[in-house]
Amino acid sequence: MSDQLVEKVLNEVMKKVAQDMAKPEAPVLEKVTENCKLTEFVGTAIGNTIGLVIANVDSELHEKMGLDKKYRSIGIFGGRTGAGPQIMAADEAVKATNTEVVAIELPRDTEGGAGHGSLIIFGAEEVSDARRAVEVALKDLNRTMGDVYVNSAGHLEFQYTARASYAIQKAFNAPVGQAFGLLVGAPAAIGVLLCDTAVKAAEIEVISYLSPSTTSHTNESILAFSGDSGAVRQALIAAREVGLQLLSALGGPCKSLTQPYI
Amino acid sequence: MSDQLVEKVLNEVMKKVAQDMAKPEAPVLEKVTENCKLTEFVGTAIGNTIGLVIANVDSELHEKMGLDKKYRSIGIFGGRTGAGPQIMAADEAVKATNTEVVAIELPRDTEGGAGHGSLIIFGAEEVSDARRAVEVALKDLNRTMGDVYVNSAGHLEFQYTARASYAIQKAFNAPVGQAFGLLVGAPAAIGVLLCDTAVKAAEIEVISYLSPSTTSHTNESILAFSGDSGAVRQALIAAREVGLQLLSALGGPCKSLTQPYI
Amino acid sequence: MSDQLVEKVLNEVMKKVAQDMAKPEAPVLEKVTENCKLTEFVGTAIGNTIGLVIANVDSELHEKMGLDKKYRSIGIFGGRTGAGPQIMAADEAVKATNTEVVAIELPRDTEGGAGHGSLIIFGAEEVSDARRAVEVALKDLNRTMGDVYVNSAGHLEFQYTARASYAIQKAFNAPVGQAFGLLVGAPAAIGVLLCDTAVKAAEIEVISYLSPSTTSHTNESILAFSGDSGAVRQALIAAREVGLQLLSALGGPCKSLTQPYI
Repeated sequence: MSDQLVEKVLNEVMKKVAQDMAKPEAPVLEKVTENCKLTEFVGTAIGNTIGLVIANVDSELHEKMGLDKKYRSIGIFGGRTGAGPQIMAADEAVKATNTEVVAIELPRDTEGGAGHGSLIIFGAEEVSDARRAVEVALKDLNRTMGDVYVNSAGHLEFQYTARASYAIQKAFNAPVGQAFGLLVGAPAAIGVLLCDTAVKAAEIEVISYLSPSTTSHTNESILAFSGDSGAVRQALIAAREVGLQLLSALGGPCKSLTQPYI
Repeated sequence: MSDQLVEKVLNEVMKKVAQDMAKPEAPVLEKVTENCKLTEFVGTAIGNTIGLVIANVDSELHEKMGLDKKYRSIGIFGGRTGAGPQIMAADEAVKATNTEVVAIELPRDTEGGAGHGSLIIFGAEEVSDARRAVEVALKDLNRTMGDVYVNSAGHLEFQYTARASYAIQKAFNAPVGQAFGLLVGAPAAIGVLLCDTAVKAAEIEVISYLSPSTTSHTNESILAFSGDSGAVRQALIAAREVGLQLLSALGGPCKSLTQPYI
Repeated sequence: MSDQLVEKVLNEVMKKVAQDMAKPEAPVLEKVTENCKLTEFVGTAIGNTIGLVIANVDSELHEKMGLDKKYRSIGIFGGRTGAGPQIMAADEAVKATNTEVVAIELPRDTEGGAGHGSLIIFGAEEVSDARRAVEVALKDLNRTMGDVYVNSAGHLEFQYTARASYAIQKAFNAPVGQAFGLLVGAPAAIGVLLCDTAVKAAEIEVISYLSPSTTSHTNESILAFSGDSGAVRQALIAAREVGLQLLSALGGPCKSLTQPYI
């Protein structure tokens, strides 16, 4: 009797464990900001993203980093998973604060995934401005992760803003003040088709097409584009519809990391 | 009594779970092609590989992608895991169809592994030709993944063809029509020794030696070579024998992803 | 009654499994060197690192690898996880043996982590010298992994030597014979703050600042510096204190891979 019981429990448990282990190994997405007493610490967010400030960067380091001399204070904002979401969030931050995005660097990361991580530096004359920019960006990241879809085979990303500001300009050379769209498909094979879908869906102006040889060797194809606000949205929605079908066909159900916003 | 039972079951289960978790986290290898209704969808294959076609690439995108104007139709073939296997399969596809390989891009990928992913574009005048090329490549991939050996510490890859065609020429600058061999060892330290083993084992002509600074920052050493058919095979077999011993010493048993063909 | 028991066991087990799965997926760190009969095999070490020798490198490969002609024998030392630790260990090896470090290549690796792997080649006139260098490096690696701290969100690394030798010079252009310090923070956002902390903590001379755009697209910020022995240590200790707080805030407890030595 007891052996049967052991067997029964064993089966139940193994079934449950198998289910758990079969889940796509998505990057860590929800993050409880732990207590950190450092004055430089601002907070953390989805995608193993952290926000920090330095009130007065050491002058030698400042020079080695190639920063503009007029900013002694910097905000630091970057994560393991995501480049587009962090850039879009930084764009909202520069709109809302007296700061400038002085550097955007895109490592090959996503914790074993197919894409980028990010390192974004805000320059400010006052540390309070730098801190405010990082706060805004950290907070907005939950929104900009909304049209990121992930499964074990890859990811899709769609970003939209009605009015691009200076972070988007710096990252993609996009015209300031215009509607801007960004789409990413990984693996890159999927991305190529999404780019074609987007340009055919609406009258948009392609700013750049990126693929593994022009990204940080990510397995992504990327389209950055501007245009009329309605057209940009239409292109994104068309590409998203196709992308979800393709990525699902390859790796099973894929879902938004937070809440879709487009 | 019941506490003893709980303890007993707990021990059994933890043992089983530990075994499961100790298994090398190999990339996803078997793939059920799910239903996808898009006309552009051709199929999926091992290594999170997908095949797609575009009948008539948008002209602006066509230009941004740097494609030859004579091909309006393209086949898209690429995956998260593997570059050599996809290139070899694409080579069979160009032999069998009226297409050309117009682009090969190699992201740093393999889903947390040490190697490349791939993005290969076939150009064709007719979409039916592009589709046929992608079909052939998808189907052949199971074969070309045969001499890929993986464990938790790295991977080995050996590829052979009696007659290289235009995909191999484009990827490795190999002479068309001659026997061609490719070997990959990861981590790169293992690969260096395999390269030496291969060149000493038979009279081959080295086309190129690649290492982390000349790949997409992969942790691989790679040798591409041509020569007499027997010599190329002999070099590969010698390197494979050494490679399996080294990779096993580092990470335990490693086995073929499908069925060895060399 | 038995169903209650099943439920109870199930709960216990799932709790235990959840704990196990919540552990940061650190790279494989302890490694039992398996028997390998190849004469070229020297041994394995932490970080999926392997050591090999070639008594007489094939002359064609030798040339393709760009090695100095005076060394026919090479030692090969490299791993999936770690660049700094392997370089520091190689530095001890060149101090202790009649060899030279002839190549250092740094893939983007760490098995899904944020950093580098490594491929280091020792040149020697005698194979016994090459073997000895690899043995010393393999053995020392356990020490140099001591101030590497890892959790699921990233890693930190601190390296110190009272007297840099030729491996460190080759890797970082550091002055031979002087105290040398190296710090790495991943994600790169954390690294930026650690660099600032270090330069403010003591009178050191910055040799180089590296970030994702100047590494192999790793998600790291890196500072290499020299100076007075006490100052170098002080800078490292200050950065380590800050780094542990930040990385913990982002990803929970992080601990040394072996035993801290600084």
